[in-house]
Amino acid sequence: MLTFESSELQGAKNIVEKLTSLPFTKVAHRIDTLDAQPASPNGDVLVMVTGALLVDEEQNQMRYSQVFHLIPDGSSYYVFNDIFRLNYGV
Amino acid sequence: MLTFESSELQGAKNIVEKLTSLPFTKVAHRIDTLDAQPASPNGDVLVMVTGALLVDEEQNQMRYSQVFHLIPDGSSYYVFNDIFRLNYGV
Repeated sequence: MLTFESSELQGAKNIVEKLTSLPFTKVAHRIDTLDAQPASPNGDVLVMVTGALLVDEEQNQMRYSQVFHLIPDGSSYYVFNDIFRLNYGV
Repeated sequence: MLTFESSELQGAKNIVEKLTSLPFTKVAHRIDTLDAQPASPNGDVLVMVTGALLVDEEQNQMRYSQVFHLIPDGSSYYVFNDIFRLNYGV
């Protein structure tokens, strides 16, 4: 499940549609902090990232936070939850 | 488990010690966004909050992000994971 700003999307098809429809062509992510914690006895991992985005030719960076809930799948993980928010100064 | 900025603390005793040792006496939280997703078939809930803090008499607010992983416990929930980060402009 993906929460992207105020959009809530469930299932791989809906999530891919959303991500490919975003109105920019280039985006650079800079990660400033990354914290992880074990989230269950099954090996789930909770990850929070904060950082900045630089979109297309825009010079002003936008700060963001993103959370991933990762579930073990063989020797890898899949993303079960993904919440993304820009951190506007209000 | 609590991640508070770069501190990692496990267990209720260590977490309470950390939270009571913070060097301010008053803090106001303002919540700007709150997103929640189901995180497991057992009813776990993943919550991300972004907002601002106003500490003591300081006039400049600090933006923050915080994630909670809540696990059902009878008619309530307990906090299994808690990750807190200030969002500095770098």
